[in-house]
Amino acid sequence: MTLHFNAFVMNTASHIQHGQWRHPDSGQVDFDDVDFWVDLAKRLEAGRFDAIFFADVSGLYGPADGDYEVHARNGLQIPSNDPAVLLSALAVNTEHLGLAYTSGILQMPPFTFARQISTLDHISRGRVAWNVVTGTQENGARNLGLPGLIPHDERYRQAEEFVDVTYQLWEGSWDDGALLKDRARGVYADASKIHKIRHKGEFYSVEGPHLPSPSRQRTPLLFQAGASATGRSFAARHAEAVFIAAPSPEVAAEGITETRRLAVEAGRLASDIKFFQGISFVVGSTEEEARRKEADLEEYISAEGMLAHMNFGTRPDGTAYPPETLLKDIDTETSKGILEWLRRSVTDREPTVADLADIVARRATRLVGTPEQIADGLQVWKDAGVDGINVVNWRLPGSYQEFIDHVMPVLRKRGLAQEEYTEGSLRKKLFGTDLINDRHPAARHRGAFKESR
Amino acid sequence: MTLHFNAFVMNTASHIQHGQWRHPDSGQVDFDDVDFWVDLAKRLEAGRFDAIFFADVSGLYGPADGDYEVHARNGLQIPSNDPAVLLSALAVNTEHLGLAYTSGILQMPPFTFARQISTLDHISRGRVAWNVVTGTQENGARNLGLPGLIPHDERYRQAEEFVDVTYQLWEGSWDDGALLKDRARGVYADASKIHKIRHKGEFYSVEGPHLPSPSRQRTPLLFQAGASATGRSFAARHAEAVFIAAPSPEVAAEGITETRRLAVEAGRLASDIKFFQGISFVVGSTEEEARRKEADLEEYISAEGMLAHMNFGTRPDGTAYPPETLLKDIDTETSKGILEWLRRSVTDREPTVADLADIVARRATRLVGTPEQIADGLQVWKDAGVDGINVVNWRLPGSYQEFIDHVMPVLRKRGLAQEEYTEGSLRKKLFGTDLINDRHPAARHRGAFKESR
Repeated sequence: MTLHFNAFVMNTASHIQHGQWRHPDSGQVDFDDVDFWVDLAKRLEAGRFDAIFFADVSGLYGPADGDYEVHARNGLQIPSNDPAVLLSALAVNTEHLGLAYTSGILQMPPFTFARQISTLDHISRGRVAWNVVTGTQENGARNLGLPGLIPHDERYRQAEEFVDVTYQLWEGSWDDGALLKDRARGVYADASKIHKIRHKGEFYSVEGPHLPSPSRQRTPLLFQAGASATGRSFAARHAEAVFIAAPSPEVAAEGITETRRLAVEAGRLASDIKFFQGISFVVGSTEEEARRKEADLEEYISAEGMLAHMNFGTRPDGTAYPPETLLKDIDTETSKGILEWLRRSVTDREPTVADLADIVARRATRLVGTPEQIADGLQVWKDAGVDGINVVNWRLPGSYQEFIDHVMPVLRKRGLAQEEYTEGSLRKKLFGTDLINDRHPAARHRGAFKESR
Repeated sequence: MTLHFNAFVMNTASHIQHGQWRHPDSGQVDFDDVDFWVDLAKRLEAGRFDAIFFADVSGLYGPADGDYEVHARNGLQIPSNDPAVLLSALAVNTEHLGLAYTSGILQMPPFTFARQISTLDHISRGRVAWNVVTGTQENGARNLGLPGLIPHDERYRQAEEFVDVTYQLWEGSWDDGALLKDRARGVYADASKIHKIRHKGEFYSVEGPHLPSPSRQRTPLLFQAGASATGRSFAARHAEAVFIAAPSPEVAAEGITETRRLAVEAGRLASDIKFFQGISFVVGSTEEEARRKEADLEEYISAEGMLAHMNFGTRPDGTAYPPETLLKDIDTETSKGILEWLRRSVTDREPTVADLADIVARRATRLVGTPEQIADGLQVWKDAGVDGINVVNWRLPGSYQEFIDHVMPVLRKRGLAQEEYTEGSLRKKLFGTDLINDRHPAARHRGAFKESR
């Protein structure tokens, strides 16, 4: 089995590796220009990446009423553009590359969203993936009409209903064979096979029918990245691909085992989920060259950008926390998750803001060295149970081009990366079937509305 | 002054001229295939059309709990796909063609929608137009979480606030010069020029700031088609382009005069709005040939599809109205508007369902003849005050290709159609400026949030 490779990007200037946009080789400063993305997508397809994956937000990081001077100066996900409407430009310029994007459950009603995805799945001939998020930004919630963030567990209850509604529309509203396009008989579609879903739940009511006909995958490939207990349980039930950001292969292995166990508990197979570890790379023809390149990259890191991204740059009043502040003394929803995550790496003392700054500057685990050394490193992650790599970039398109030109050939030689794409939809490429499998909760809506018109 | 030309389409198999998809030359049966749309957009650009315009819906036509057998069989806007996510595929395959689409105010929150439009305006380098609709389908409202349609006037009050929020985000959230991309100083954007809008209204609360930086047009070119008194008043205040479907040039002239008068009352210039009349064409090298072609097209018309589109195919219980039923005895929200509209053509008696069926089968006013005769006809519409034509199609791409190959050259010779595109944004092409003018209500938000962070 080869590893899968995602290019982890965002429709913005500074996504993860803050500060890098300042380098002359960083094309991401011009992310507004569609040609930049078309060029990148073509490179990724030439390099046999499985997918380009767009992260997204609905608002600013940081405290509820805090300042965003640091964010704007760093281009820290502001300005940022909608990824969904960019994808068809990439779809018509590629044939195999998966097109994955993040959409939060508050961004639009499930009916509108389900139609958007179905349209994109038609346009791309089955290459779309959805990263389900609940949204963790106070400003994002306020942008979308709420007074503030919904409490974490309630958010997941709402997400549970949101995905269920979309499953009903994708899997249950149209039977196979409803679309006839029969010119001679004058029957475009057979209404007896198109059903209203009449969903009435706690958060949503949706009558249906779904307006698009079934796309190749029906339900798009489902990504998720929840790291909390609730998030992990959600992923175990719903995700087909899970992003992880483990600090080491050992920690990754633990998390993967636990999520797979939960998946099996939920009636799925352990192999129904593929795990993608986020890693950034620095490639040199010698180890020394790689270290020199790393020093250059480090020089461009914006520490304040890194902290602001973690919602730790500033207090509610906009001032910075002193470095020696103990994380346990900072009481926000975000801080708990970060603290839990940080304790896996800082085990000998109470983690401080300074520890966090140090870790986040390298938070996407980094592999530095020759292509062979990097391949060795990836083998270790693979042995830990990782199915794929979420390749975090420094500078675009350079980080990916370098990886494609120098690392991919070595990986292919070792059987760690695919030589050619498999034909068919994204799910077919990853799991061998166009449609989501029968063990997934989406599948129970198949045929569920047979009597409904 | 030349006339402007829009191709009036929808991401569906049967948009206006129901029944035509059954003809072997109708490519619209494969509207799911993005290549079909890319090909059409390229043809339209080669033919110097101003824009491709996508209509859209959020649900089915027809009575609230009626059957949709007629709709599905006719492909009557079901299945149908989201137009928004299709546009970037067209944007990267064209350079000048305007990209206009319909989006209803219930489809998504204004913050999400404003970001979608700004992204598309960036991608297309300023070629996006928005057709503001409030939604007139009961099923559409129920798909989007409401128990049913909002009463007409309240819908427009909500629309008023929706557009106002988007104006705030497009015009007021980012000052000129906020985006610096200054690598040397490490300043991507200047937060002192990026403002929260902190909108709290009757229907929406949106904090901001807008996430995308200003696109070329900021506010997209604004289309509207409201025919009711409230709709017309809304158009007079907000629209830069208005769709009309007048039964004759005289009626068009009346309506145009009235809307322009309302626009002036609202502080705008009469010339701030361009009017596009919907017309379909049948072109022949002789009049006789054109009439033969018309007979062939007529043969393919689906009368039941035409009626169902007008929400008149069936009673609430799903049965058909007898042809002699007086329209004034059918009491639905839609029927009032249709009756008013029909009385302009049927002046000697109370209009019946039979009258309606007859009229709707030719409802987009039709010009039939040689290219010269059609040019003569268009001259009459132009003399009535029409600025552009919404070209309704029968069969795709044939209806447009025929118009481009045979009618456009004659129109150009007469100075009725542009020889070449003007450079720049869609608004630049139509009005000479990238940005919406100072008389428009959007403009009052410029600089309105200077003190807000």
